[in-house]
Order: sequence, then structure tokens, then C-alpha cells
Amino acid sequence: MTATSAQGVTAPAGFEAAGVAVGLKSTGEPDVAVVVNRGPLAVGAAVFTSNRAKANPILWSQQAIADGVVEAIVLNSGGANCFTGSFGFQTTHQTAEKAAELLGISPGDVLVCSTGLIGTGDETFRAKVLTGTEDAISQLSADGGESAARAIMTTDTVPKTSTHTGDGWTIGAMAKGAGMLAPGLATMLVVLTTDAVLDAAEADAHLRAATRVSFDRLDSDGCMSTNDQVTLLVSGASGITPDPAAFGAALTEVCLDLAAQLQRDAEGASHDITIRVVGAVSEADAVEVGRSVARNNLFKTAIFGNDPNWGRVLAAIGTTQASFDPYAVDVSFNGVRLCSAGAPDRPREEVDLTPRATDVLIDLQAGDASATILTNDLTHDYVHENSAYSS
Amino acid sequence: MTATSAQGVTAPAGFEAAGVAVGLKSTGEPDVAVVVNRGPLAVGAAVFTSNRAKANPILWSQQAIADGVVEAIVLNSGGANCFTGSFGFQTTHQTAEKAAELLGISPGDVLVCSTGLIGTGDETFRAKVLTGTEDAISQLSADGGESAARAIMTTDTVPKTSTHTGDGWTIGAMAKGAGMLAPGLATMLVVLTTDAVLDAAEADAHLRAATRVSFDRLDSDGCMSTNDQVTLLVSGASGITPDPAAFGAALTEVCLDLAAQLQRDAEGASHDITIRVVGAVSEADAVEVGRSVARNNLFKTAIFGNDPNWGRVLAAIGTTQASFDPYAVDVSFNGVRLCSAGAPDRPREEVDLTPRATDVLIDLQAGDASATILTNDLTHDYVHENSAYSS
Repeated sequence: MTATSAQGVTAPAGFEAAGVAVGLKSTGEPDVAVVVNRGPLAVGAAVFTSNRAKANPILWSQQAIADGVVEAIVLNSGGANCFTGSFGFQTTHQTAEKAAELLGISPGDVLVCSTGLIGTGDETFRAKVLTGTEDAISQLSADGGESAARAIMTTDTVPKTSTHTGDGWTIGAMAKGAGMLAPGLATMLVVLTTDAVLDAAEADAHLRAATRVSFDRLDSDGCMSTNDQVTLLVSGASGITPDPAAFGAALTEVCLDLAAQLQRDAEGASHDITIRVVGAVSEADAVEVGRSVARNNLFKTAIFGNDPNWGRVLAAIGTTQASFDPYAVDVSFNGVRLCSAGAPDRPREEVDLTPRATDVLIDLQAGDASATILTNDLTHDYVHENSAYSS
Repeated sequence: MTATSAQGVTAPAGFEAAGVAVGLKSTGEPDVAVVVNRGPLAVGAAVFTSNRAKANPILWSQQAIADGVVEAIVLNSGGANCFTGSFGFQTTHQTAEKAAELLGISPGDVLVCSTGLIGTGDETFRAKVLTGTEDAISQLSADGGESAARAIMTTDTVPKTSTHTGDGWTIGAMAKGAGMLAPGLATMLVVLTTDAVLDAAEADAHLRAATRVSFDRLDSDGCMSTNDQVTLLVSGASGITPDPAAFGAALTEVCLDLAAQLQRDAEGASHDITIRVVGAVSEADAVEVGRSVARNNLFKTAIFGNDPNWGRVLAAIGTTQASFDPYAVDVSFNGVRLCSAGAPDRPREEVDLTPRATDVLIDLQAGDASATILTNDLTHDYVHENSAYSS
């Protein structure tokens, strides 16, 4: 059973969290979060943006996660600490050292995540992050999940958490991200926690399997962030070793729940578009076709205009290398097949695109594989939010 | 010397053209154009969209151009005749046959181009295209270049023509395209004419060389059309065999002139952005890097907001496979270097992005190759034009 819950990362046993405000955000909202794994296990796994332009916290966390041991994670909004030179890397390093000193652990077992404007990371930024780390650690509590979820918000309008209760074990989670949602993750910071008993290899395998079909298939605006990180922390405090299939399914369900929350809160969006590609020769083909549509600005603006413009779907999928005959494809909007076998089918007037939930079904008529991509429309509010404010 | 000229395709000797209105456009504006090559040569070359979802006129013209002989080209706006089934292909075939019959030539020497809404191509469309073909042929004239250029406009706000006077020979041209401008061409219909003496292989080689560095590097909104076609018609009427280098340079110049006109008239754009990538290991790397920026919606909205957001440039180029170190890259906006070697350089306040012409210089610091990509910003007007109207 997956449920949105204010508890979030502190829902499973063995975790404490806190979120505090130190002025990184001009609004005075909370901007530094810490999540601590009190064990008995100190297992961690993480996946990172595939963008080659990686922020300093990504460079740090990639090293820190190598041994599969994580005891704490520090996250800040209000500055990405990306392209801030060696000073910026030292800031991340000092953040891990500060947390380690206060928690009595090793700096190499502390992950760091940042989100905000690229190029932000001067001495003031450093001082505030260090102060925030100290403040948050002083306020750690076993019901601090909600305050942590609030502290990682940027243009998010709501905090995003999820929990799943398994057979004696629990998964908790928090996420942020409202823009730059893209493939291979996207300024998306996610922390998943569990009190199930897993070793580092199991945690890594479960995390990769779950993100591959959830966050990796959320492609709101095609723009990949420099700071994405999805982290799984394992306390083992339940003492229960879960059935692997059940745990895997539960973790995937939590990730899909968070992905849907991210989609619903995407910057300026007026439609949540589910692009289902079926009849593909391979899953990779289905993903490529779905992504090509999700990234097509003409398709995205048409949906904003409640126009079931199937021609733009076909023009988008025609740019892919996937195996199919463009003249054999069926395209349906909200259950109405508008194009079949290279010609118009039902009249587009039969489609009602006024609901926010939009379903686009593309049948490639070439095989048995399928994939689903989640995206959003391209709206005036998206242009406004991303042109009026630096982020 | 290249000049924008109302003469366009009829500037060189040996060509006649006309544009007429037959009601394909609801506005009553001209919508069918014919250009005829009166010889003595009947040489043609063409390049087509690389979109696998190709419109019927593309399927027809690809066959017709195979022998390098073209005597006429018929173009219509007000309907793309794409994904209109076998009926739509027959419409294109009948169009070529109608023109051939009236001109006393072979249908296989008539190219056809269409532009407008995908899925449009019913019996009414067919009747109007055939009537328009007949009307235009009855009005052919040696100064019909301007009326032809007007008849191929869709959301273009101005007709687009260009001429170049060489050493005894002339190149003329017309183009349409204001949206869907993209790589490998884009609902871009272009007809180039010349009275220079060229054989089919020379015409083809010159055309490919010129389009590769002009229309192929115009990437206004990343959306590739189903109907793009750039055609070169050679009459040889000047009797002059041009110096190959001079002719190639002139043809490239004309194509660049038209590409710039297309960029200036791109749907809803408020900035014409020139992305210059230097210091690349290869030209292909430079093109990949430039395109990744040109297609990044966060970059494009930032420019609309007059925000020199260099972080979004680095986040975009970090998604490429090109050879360079993301932490060694320099990025300049309108001559001000904002990022150098992975850290901020000059303050962004020094950049004035209010002029329409915007220059982004990316120095990869990895080699000696370079490329320039032309693009536009992402604006409210772009969203409005592409959401409020089907196209």
C-alpha cells in the first residue's frame, strides 16, 4: 500500500530528519535538510544525473557512495553549487565534514545534494550551508520527514513524500523537482529510506530497477539537470529481510508515485500527459518513440491548446531510429483513434482534451514491447516561470 | 553580391513562375505556385526532410528527381497532404500529370511540394490543387517570382526571396517557413533557380554542400517537418559555365541569406540567436553542441527573458557526447565572457540581451573545429501561435 504521507523519509524505523531555514532562499522558507540513518545498517545506494556537467555535490556523492556505506545526507535548496570552481567543491567537502563531526561519523559516509541556480556558491552560500547543516542536525527528529521535504523545495508548490508499508518493513521517501525534469533524472532530488534489511548490492540493484521505469521515464521538458540524485538509505531497523520481488515492486511503486507527484507539479503545466507506446519491437524502441513525442514543442503546445494534433505525433516519431513503418502506426488521444495506417481515422472533434490527464496511445504495429513516458504540455506559464526568473 | 529581391526565382534567365489563390487558405491569400524551367537545360537537384514520416509530395519528388531532370515544380500551401493515405499520393500524382499535360512535358519531370496541416488532403483539397495548378500555369510569367513566393507562405509574415548575380550567371530563390524549422531541414520549402550551366551531378553536389552549412544549421524549434524540400532548378540559359568555387560560394550565400530570413520570421520569436561553437575537436562535435543548446527550452526561455543564463548552456552541452571537458569551457553572451574554466567569470549584469540579435559563443577549448547554429527564443507568442491554431 503506497500512500502520500507527511512522514516521508522518517516513516521507516531508524531514520531522523530535519529541515531548517538559513536564508539561502530569499523567501525565508526552509532551505537545508538533513536525513540521518541511525542503523543498525548503514547501507546506501544512489543514482546520479547522466549530464556530464555535474555539480560539485554530485562529484562528491559519487565518490562517497562507492563503498555502499551512507550514514547521512545533507541537502540544500537555494543554490546548485555547480560550476563554482574548486571553492565550490571545498564547500561540499566542508559540508560533509561538518555533518560528520557533529554526528560522530566519517565524512566519506555523508552524501550532499544541492539545487538552485547554477554558478551560485560563494562564501556567503558556504557559510549558510554550514550553519544550516549544524542547525538541522541539532533539530533531528524521528518525525522530521515533513520539514525535510519542505526544505528541498525550489519552485515546487507542494512538498512531495510517499510511504509504503510492506510485510514488516516500510519504505519512506521525499522528492523535489518542478522544472528540468528529464531523462536520466532531472533537477530531481529524491531520498528513499527503508528499515528493511538489504545489503549494498541489493540496495543498488533495487534502486536502479525502480528508477529505470519511473524517474527515468518522466520527461517534463527534456532538459537534464546538473544536480539530479536519487538516494536509497537502508537502516535495517525492522530486522526483516524482505521478499526481493515484493520489495522491488514496492520501491518501484513509491518511485512511480513520486514521479506522478513531480509531473503534477511541473512548472506551468496544464496537462499531465501519459504517452503509452505499444507494439514496439523492443522496450528501447518504445522509450525512444515516447521521448521523441514528449520533447516535441509543437506537440506540447498543441496539447496546451486542447488540440489533438496527431500529425505532430507522427512528425515527432518519424525522427526516431526505432523499427516501425510510419504508415502503419495508429495514434489515439484519450481513447479516440485519430490516425490509422497512414491516414485520418475518427474526426478530431470527438476528442475532449480539457481534462488535465491526457492519454496518448501510439501503436507502432511492429512487435510486442511497450513503454510509458510521462510529460507535460508547453504553456504560457512555463515560458513565464522560466523567462522571468533565473533558476 | 546577394540581394533580397522580389524577382526571386525568376531573376535568372529561363524561368517563369506564378502564384494564384484557389481557396486552400481560408484567408483567400495565394496558395498555389508553379515554377517552370524553360531551358535550354532541364537539370534539377533536391534534398528532402530526413523525417521518416514523409508527406506524399516528398515520396513523389524523391522518385521524380532520381534522373536529375526537372522541368517544373508545383507548390501549395494550405494543406500538407501528409498521412492522407493512397488517395493523397494519387492527388500528388495527378498534380504532376496536370502540370505535365498543360506544359507538354513528362509528369516524371514535375516535382510537387505541399505545406500546411498534416492529415489534410480530401477531395476538396485535390480539386483546389488541380485548379490552382491550371490557373498558375495560365499565368506564368518571367517576372512571376514574387507572386510565387507569396503563394507558398503559411504563417510567414513576409515573402522570402534572394538573388545573386555572378560572372554572367544569376541565382534566384524563394523560401517559406516560419515554424518547425529544424535540422535536416524543416517545414521549409525552398526553390533555387539558376541560369548557369551545370549538369545534374554538379547541381546535386552544389546543393548538398550549400544546404549542409545553411538550412541544416537553422534549428528554430527542434521540430523536423514531414514536408521539407529544397530544390535547385538549372536552366543554363546564360550559356555560362561558372567557376565551381564561385558558384558554390554564391549558392551557399543565397542559402544563408534565406536561412537568416527564415530565422527572422520564425513564429513568435523575439530573439535571433547565433550560437557559435569554437574549439571543438571536430565540426560534428561543434554542431552537436550547438544543437543541444538550440533545443534546450530552459535556455530558450531565458533568452526570451533577457537572462544570460550560462548555467543552462552548460547543462545543455553536458548532455552531448562531444569530446571536451565541461569544466574547461568558456561561455560568452554578446561578447561578455560569463563562465570560464568551470566557474563564473564576468558578472551577468554586464550583458545586454535586449537587442533581437543575440550572440552566444561557446569555446570548448578542445580543438580547432567550429560550427554555427541559428535558433530563436521560446516565447509566449510561440506558445500562442502553436497552441491556438492547428498547423
